[in-house]
Amino acid sequence: MSEPGAKKRAVHCPGTPAVALPEETSPGAIGSGSVDELRSLTLAELKAVVGRLPESLRHIAEYHFGWKDERGRPVQGSPGKLVRPVLVLMCARAAGGQAEAAIPAAVAVELVHNFSLLHDDVMDGDATRRHRLTVWSAFGTGNAVLLGDALLALAFETVTALGRGSAGAFSDALLDMVQGQAKDLAFEVETSVTLSDGMTMAAGKTGALLRCACLLGALSAGADEARAVSFGEFGAHLGLAFQLTDDVLSIWGDPETTGKPVGNDLRTRKKTLPVLAALSSGTAAAERLALLYGRDPARPTGPDECGELAALIEQAGGRSWAEHSGQQAYAAAIAALERARPEAGAAVGLLALAEALVHRTS
Amino acid sequence: MSEPGAKKRAVHCPGTPAVALPEETSPGAIGSGSVDELRSLTLAELKAVVGRLPESLRHIAEYHFGWKDERGRPVQGSPGKLVRPVLVLMCARAAGGQAEAAIPAAVAVELVHNFSLLHDDVMDGDATRRHRLTVWSAFGTGNAVLLGDALLALAFETVTALGRGSAGAFSDALLDMVQGQAKDLAFEVETSVTLSDGMTMAAGKTGALLRCACLLGALSAGADEARAVSFGEFGAHLGLAFQLTDDVLSIWGDPETTGKPVGNDLRTRKKTLPVLAALSSGTAAAERLALLYGRDPARPTGPDECGELAALIEQAGGRSWAEHSGQQAYAAAIAALERARPEAGAAVGLLALAEALVHRTS
Repeated sequence: MSEPGAKKRAVHCPGTPAVALPEETSPGAIGSGSVDELRSLTLAELKAVVGRLPESLRHIAEYHFGWKDERGRPVQGSPGKLVRPVLVLMCARAAGGQAEAAIPAAVAVELVHNFSLLHDDVMDGDATRRHRLTVWSAFGTGNAVLLGDALLALAFETVTALGRGSAGAFSDALLDMVQGQAKDLAFEVETSVTLSDGMTMAAGKTGALLRCACLLGALSAGADEARAVSFGEFGAHLGLAFQLTDDVLSIWGDPETTGKPVGNDLRTRKKTLPVLAALSSGTAAAERLALLYGRDPARPTGPDECGELAALIEQAGGRSWAEHSGQQAYAAAIAALERARPEAGAAVGLLALAEALVHRTS
Repeated sequence: MSEPGAKKRAVHCPGTPAVALPEETSPGAIGSGSVDELRSLTLAELKAVVGRLPESLRHIAEYHFGWKDERGRPVQGSPGKLVRPVLVLMCARAAGGQAEAAIPAAVAVELVHNFSLLHDDVMDGDATRRHRLTVWSAFGTGNAVLLGDALLALAFETVTALGRGSAGAFSDALLDMVQGQAKDLAFEVETSVTLSDGMTMAAGKTGALLRCACLLGALSAGADEARAVSFGEFGAHLGLAFQLTDDVLSIWGDPETTGKPVGNDLRTRKKTLPVLAALSSGTAAAERLALLYGRDPARPTGPDECGELAALIEQAGGRSWAEHSGQQAYAAAIAALERARPEAGAAVGLLALAEALVHRTS
């Protein structure tokens, strides 16, 4: 899972227009406050919650969230797009509630997202994220593990106060995320990973938290179970579409702006969805790809080999499959949103956000 | 935090008789079932919950809990003493409830205890526990982090179903544990750690979970808040007494039976409570100890130096302080238990367990 705000390069999704991220949406389009206002509300509460950590961990948390640098000096610029919290608050409005009432849920979702970033970076050995050293890389593995635990503990505390329905949805999501990450780790050593395995993994790693975000937003508005579940399905499909876009960008995006090293996923032989689709295509390109992917990932891979891998995945249909599947998942998200009967005003902003996430040109 | 069952060596606590661990207590002493029965009830449910993990993690969990070896073969012998779950179930009975109703809480407490063991071993770099390789050491850091996360997710799911009171007590304990561990990590680099800092750390790392265990047991029995809080205080004081015993054993215990390498805490210059008490004594031994403790812990320390450190701590009064403080904490635990007005039959077993934990000769 990576932060969409970190991506700055266009990817061409046939038949779908590129749209701006909804921070540029006019305030009136999503109800009583703009996306910027929702983001500010969340950020203030998030900072207050993180401010309760012991000093040694707070310092590292402020670095991790991009509010401070390694030496504790404030960082100028955007505090990040806070996509998941904004999704919680927009779903709250779309379900007929007030965004303000959903702020604790929004904060909990952002906390658990960052718990997973911290621990995934340790497990994956990723040394950089968004052009900065990851926490384990800058402050050591112990601090990265503990800060992740701390953010999860704060998230528990927050959702516990929201009642059993929200806490149950939250713990379901957490278990799904852990299972997704377990699959992802297992993929590193398994040689016979299927596309179906990959889809299950993505549903856990990315879909579960976006499902939870939308479900919690709807529950905060007092939505009945069926309606809340539809909001959740909107989030789950959106999560898969989001992941497919992410996988495409990670292979064909511009590393200058993704914040990840050139061909990172390819060099580490990561079995992302376009790769799994390509491998299952039965083409000559798939055979050659399987041969190259089977090689020892510890062996250095030059830019030429990354280029060859990307070309093979594209030739074997992995890219077009991912783009097509992304469109299907997006369509399924919209259908679920329709079933959720969103309030008209709020629905416009929610659709703009969804479209921006999936069809992002950055 | 280490498992009391791993310790096999007597430590002399003046004025208090050594007692056997209550697995040898007669069944009638604690109500309708023996400690062995309580342990079996918990173990069956714990195995069922762990059995829901994805296969790759389940395998590692079964190793971690000591049910299987690295290759997945069943391990013969004791499944461990399950001290914390037994404490939950005994407190449930002592508060007038049924042990059976408290099993989910008991399982949640054992899960969170094991989450902390897994992550603490990563953070502390401890390669062995109970004579076996730790999970990070046998299966890699990524698996140890993820299995910890998974056990915590299962624990959270379990307590969520118990209602807001229990879930709130659980998340309080988790936050305290994280804060205790943060202090413990910070102690590694800080040079001016006070005894008061050490006591706060121990309250978080060990006291918080035993408080939670007793509180959850009482809540499962429908105890009112004041009574449940008294049970919690019993657990918190017991936890401190338990930690003091542990610290004494880690310096003067027999490594053959503690399962930790000779003088492990001393070699890594761990600022345990007896050490902090010794350092604050203003004696000549304290000065010499401060000098030796200030040396680079990466430098190899021979058995002679460990022996000298242990002798200096004892000369500076660290051992007698720890033993005396342990007795005080134990007395405070008993006073709290009296305030909790335990059911007579169950109280006997609870007292025997408490005494065995604190005055353990093993």
